[in-house]
Amino acid sequence: MRRSKEFLIGRMKDAGLAVRLDRVGNIFARKEGCRTNRGAVMSGSHLDSVLNGGMFDGPLGVISALEAVRIMGDENFKNDRPIEVAVFMGEEGSAFKKGLLGSHILAGKMPVEEAWQIKNDEGLSLKDALDRLSLRGDFEIDLGDVEYFIETHIEQGPVLDQEEIPIGIVENITGLTWVYATLEGEENHAGTTPMLSRKDALVAAADIVLFASKRAKEMVQEFGGSTVATVGRMSVLPGAPNIVPGRVEMAIDIRDGVEENMKNLREEIIGRIKDLKGKYGIKNTFSIPLYNPPHPCSRAVVETIAKAVQELGLKARSINSGAGHDAQNIAEKVKTGMIFVPSMGGISHSPLEWTNWEDIERGIHVLTRALQKLSKHKTASLFA
Amino acid sequence: MRRSKEFLIGRMKDAGLAVRLDRVGNIFARKEGCRTNRGAVMSGSHLDSVLNGGMFDGPLGVISALEAVRIMGDENFKNDRPIEVAVFMGEEGSAFKKGLLGSHILAGKMPVEEAWQIKNDEGLSLKDALDRLSLRGDFEIDLGDVEYFIETHIEQGPVLDQEEIPIGIVENITGLTWVYATLEGEENHAGTTPMLSRKDALVAAADIVLFASKRAKEMVQEFGGSTVATVGRMSVLPGAPNIVPGRVEMAIDIRDGVEENMKNLREEIIGRIKDLKGKYGIKNTFSIPLYNPPHPCSRAVVETIAKAVQELGLKARSINSGAGHDAQNIAEKVKTGMIFVPSMGGISHSPLEWTNWEDIERGIHVLTRALQKLSKHKTASLFA
Repeated sequence: MRRSKEFLIGRMKDAGLAVRLDRVGNIFARKEGCRTNRGAVMSGSHLDSVLNGGMFDGPLGVISALEAVRIMGDENFKNDRPIEVAVFMGEEGSAFKKGLLGSHILAGKMPVEEAWQIKNDEGLSLKDALDRLSLRGDFEIDLGDVEYFIETHIEQGPVLDQEEIPIGIVENITGLTWVYATLEGEENHAGTTPMLSRKDALVAAADIVLFASKRAKEMVQEFGGSTVATVGRMSVLPGAPNIVPGRVEMAIDIRDGVEENMKNLREEIIGRIKDLKGKYGIKNTFSIPLYNPPHPCSRAVVETIAKAVQELGLKARSINSGAGHDAQNIAEKVKTGMIFVPSMGGISHSPLEWTNWEDIERGIHVLTRALQKLSKHKTASLFA
Repeated sequence: MRRSKEFLIGRMKDAGLAVRLDRVGNIFARKEGCRTNRGAVMSGSHLDSVLNGGMFDGPLGVISALEAVRIMGDENFKNDRPIEVAVFMGEEGSAFKKGLLGSHILAGKMPVEEAWQIKNDEGLSLKDALDRLSLRGDFEIDLGDVEYFIETHIEQGPVLDQEEIPIGIVENITGLTWVYATLEGEENHAGTTPMLSRKDALVAAADIVLFASKRAKEMVQEFGGSTVATVGRMSVLPGAPNIVPGRVEMAIDIRDGVEENMKNLREEIIGRIKDLKGKYGIKNTFSIPLYNPPHPCSRAVVETIAKAVQELGLKARSINSGAGHDAQNIAEKVKTGMIFVPSMGGISHSPLEWTNWEDIERGIHVLTRALQKLSKHKTASLFA
């Protein structure tokens, strides 16, 4: 991580940008604008990856932003608003276990001093880790001075690749909620317990798995949105072939770009879980360990990206982001949008993650043009 | 185990029985009969238990047989055929990993020398373990000299307890087959993979779980038998809440007293597994690691037990044994039956396993009378 950041900082300086590190290791590289009294335009993403991940998830958004600024330099483009290339630290939560950490702190959702105390698997605190790598700075950016933000990212899903559309204009960063459910039946001998005397926790869990999948599909058909519901983790206990399962622990992941739909689906699934008592005699408890509402993108930014796409004569489609991104934290303070480029086969978080170079080039051109337009925006200036 | 067997052998000798150990530690205690030219009547079970099991599963059948012989002594009953009280070693497979081991060897399904080489978890061979405990004898029983066998056992299921019937007369020791299936879909991001682009191995597995349960219930209704189907073990991989499961490994346990029904249900379930390819795009492989056909009990023994029940003025019902028992091995060579007594709440293989003393007493009286009747049977003598 130190070497990739050193390399990047070198290239930022080569491009004539002023590089500053903040107190948790977020990096900001500024191209000054002609009008310093207008809020900045920011673009960037993260450099870190999941373990055994690919090389596009994160770095693409950083490199695209830097490349956009270099193109502006080559074209001798004069930006009115300042442009900030941003690198958010710890997006994947691989080392310090809290996803979107850098942007989370920037959005004011965790004090810097609290973040410094987080320890990695080796027991090293974030503060000490930053000091070891000389990545702890003293800059403090004020998001109140930033007017617009665009994050370029691979889709991480199959839609653009399947439809052969090079650009996705993100409308919504999806809402996400988890339900943890524990189903308790009666552990019994698989041979001697008649079918009608059973309280099989796995049969009840299978009902929930199919219900969640079916209802999510129906909601996609009904509302045309990006509803998804997934049971990704399920433990069947005690787990012997000849014992009727007495207990199942399961996690249900529910996402939608529309908060009401997400909540409704969650309540339907919870209702179905509660009904297991009457239907199968299965006791149940559940909790909601995670709730992130959807973050709609800024209309101004979405329309600016659409205009850039149109001027470049490219095909594009509206899309929702099913994954979480730093952009969702920045969106709480700044007018935000995202540009997606295709992921081959929809594969991500894998060494097989791949995006064709021509698609990356198209994405960078769209970003460049959108940032140029935003940098000229006169409306909503801070001090005008 | 050594101490329980020492205690038991002491009580057998007190009852005037001739005690012999065979080469794998099965114990036989003989009450000589008036007619030595007729095949013996045998009764017994096993003393070993599953880990964390109860005190009835196994020992009850041994103690009942010994008690029956003691009652005959008290009543000064003269048996024509010899009576053998049998203790089969290693029924549960807890130490030497092969269930029904003692009766398996007796039935000629494994040579003694091969059994001796089986090692326990500490690497000790069965032969060395028997020598350490002084449980290796040199007696060889010939099941050709045994005409009838009755095993008394707790039901281990809820039927007798629910219906408040003290005696179950076993018609069939159930057939049992296992299907191991591996379902392979596509591991994917739970947020970015639209519902209609998924190959979710857990959704496919849930379909199989519900299908197996539903079809087993329908077969019970259709044929009035003891059909059961259970998915007791299921692993969901990779097992993260936000990843669409790419792989599920599952074990399906199918039992029926009627071999054709068991086979048909297994083929239906395998057919449903194969259909997952077309229905959900899920690749599948399966194997059949276990196949035991049902063992019907001897009509002569079943009718003798029914007559004993009737003479004692007790309520009884026909029942199938859903669990495997030593009796199924003995049944391959000897006319065999089983007497079930109620298990409270159907609980077994648990410290909570319980059978009321009055029910045990009733079971012993039925066994005693049935053994007395069989010991006088003139038909089917070996040498007459």
